[in-house]
Amino acid sequence: MTVTEHMTAADLTVDDMRRARERIRDHTHYTPVLTSSFLNEMTGAELFFKCENFQKAGAFKVRGATNAVFGLHDDIAARGVATHSSGNHALSLSYAAGRRGIPCHVVMPHTAPEAKKAAVRGYGGLITECEPSTTNREAVFAEVHAKTGADFVHPYNDPRVIAGQATCSAELLEQVEELDAVVAPIGGGGMISGTCLTLSNLAPDTDIYAAEPLQADDAARSFRAGKIIADDAPITIADGLKVPLKENTWHFVSNFVTDVQTASEQEIIAAMKLTWQRMKMVIEPSCAVPLAVILRNPEVYRSKRVGVIITGGNVDMDRLPWVETGESAH
Amino acid sequence: MTVTEHMTAADLTVDDMRRARERIRDHTHYTPVLTSSFLNEMTGAELFFKCENFQKAGAFKVRGATNAVFGLHDDIAARGVATHSSGNHALSLSYAAGRRGIPCHVVMPHTAPEAKKAAVRGYGGLITECEPSTTNREAVFAEVHAKTGADFVHPYNDPRVIAGQATCSAELLEQVEELDAVVAPIGGGGMISGTCLTLSNLAPDTDIYAAEPLQADDAARSFRAGKIIADDAPITIADGLKVPLKENTWHFVSNFVTDVQTASEQEIIAAMKLTWQRMKMVIEPSCAVPLAVILRNPEVYRSKRVGVIITGGNVDMDRLPWVETGESAH
Repeated sequence: MTVTEHMTAADLTVDDMRRARERIRDHTHYTPVLTSSFLNEMTGAELFFKCENFQKAGAFKVRGATNAVFGLHDDIAARGVATHSSGNHALSLSYAAGRRGIPCHVVMPHTAPEAKKAAVRGYGGLITECEPSTTNREAVFAEVHAKTGADFVHPYNDPRVIAGQATCSAELLEQVEELDAVVAPIGGGGMISGTCLTLSNLAPDTDIYAAEPLQADDAARSFRAGKIIADDAPITIADGLKVPLKENTWHFVSNFVTDVQTASEQEIIAAMKLTWQRMKMVIEPSCAVPLAVILRNPEVYRSKRVGVIITGGNVDMDRLPWVETGESAH
Repeated sequence: MTVTEHMTAADLTVDDMRRARERIRDHTHYTPVLTSSFLNEMTGAELFFKCENFQKAGAFKVRGATNAVFGLHDDIAARGVATHSSGNHALSLSYAAGRRGIPCHVVMPHTAPEAKKAAVRGYGGLITECEPSTTNREAVFAEVHAKTGADFVHPYNDPRVIAGQATCSAELLEQVEELDAVVAPIGGGGMISGTCLTLSNLAPDTDIYAAEPLQADDAARSFRAGKIIADDAPITIADGLKVPLKENTWHFVSNFVTDVQTASEQEIIAAMKLTWQRMKMVIEPSCAVPLAVILRNPEVYRSKRVGVIITGGNVDMDRLPWVETGESAH
């Protein structure tokens, strides 16, 4: 079977992930796994950080975007691709479209970090701005989509994207043996769904934990309620994790996730700073959430071998959450 | 021949480097090489970053320190080791001494970043503070040395340390084929000397460039004058590069270095920020100097395959050079 935009999550097989690996190989990095003795001692676990912050375009989302773009038939590809995104998917789709030489239309909240907007334009993406609510974003997108006829690549609720994200944990399984658990951030659920697709087939004994900001805990509440609960425009520093689950990602979350754990804004910022200090890596607030939930729930992870997906490193260096700037001090 | 503290740089052979590799293998990381399409396009060169910021204790200096500590006979080791250092050698020697279970005495300028002092203590190092001038540092050290009887491991003017640093480019040669040039920062010259030891033997056609802050350009002036010129307490943000050359490192600099290139403070800060932004890596100001000189001298590096030694990532996250803090704004 070939992944098309009309299939659903339930149709996805591990072979779709394998085909995605072939399709994206020349356009993405096989990212390294790093470890930290300090963080191992601090948590009592053995942590293996899969570093998608070193990925092309600075985030794992390039995997799903590239799989979608390079899977298009030529006649459809010619009209370009379009999406709405809080940031990294916009970057990634612009990057992938640029590699294929087709246009990429992006609807993006005007509140997104300037660094991300500049990077999207740097990859050739064409931005239309919207309000930061999901409702307004979808309305503005409908206009852009109708006008251009471009192929819609949803940031996460698209089987092609999920199959692409699934390649990340396939690499992790090659790099680290016998993982007891994998922790990944959850926003819309694209990375978690890809992780579930790969692990449920290739490492079914590995627990899968989703990590979410307490201030945008719709996935945790959905998980407990047994149905999708969506919030409009939650406020959290983890700006990649504000969006709600959709039916394709809910399929994986409801069937394969072990638990959804949450962390406060302060815990997220502390985990982010700790990672910069001790691992010498620039990571986004969104990908500090897994370390934050590990530090908050040590009993769950102690003495275990734990994969931690570091999803991206796109940060506005002039606005770091632990530095009171001259600007805000006035 | 075994490396002892009484031999000189001229006695060092590539076999001393090979023995150092065996000695330090269990205590150090084989660090990754990362690349950036963005920086390749920006410079017109093909850059290969050897990431010693991911090294144990956060810097390459752990290689030389570990080689020195684990090469000691048991009876000498029992009295411990001692050094003076602007930071990373102090961390590294404390780390290595801790691994061997012997004391480590460190004389350190009171102006060193708090993060470095805390990390030295974290590894069990015993700090005595001094003034930031080379003269005062050496005087205070003489007292500590006399009192403890510890073995002096100089941060760079020690053949054991140079043989240890030489292991870094030995790995780089295994990781990247056919390098036209390697660029490394120069302060006292330990890393550059190790680089010269390895490359002059194993890749004699590779050019070796030393990168230095313009505001602490004693190595550049020494290189032009054909003799060591030392400054006392130069002022630069690249705090690892303030110390002068000594006879053992001068041997390598004068015989094997292709050129010493300099960069301004602004160029160093811009290269540092660019590396954080585009490569998602935390690097110290000192190791932004190589990228700064590459950007300043594009004609030297264009179309070449260039190894760049990223020497360390120990940074005070609360004092970033491009962020005006609330503190300084008042």
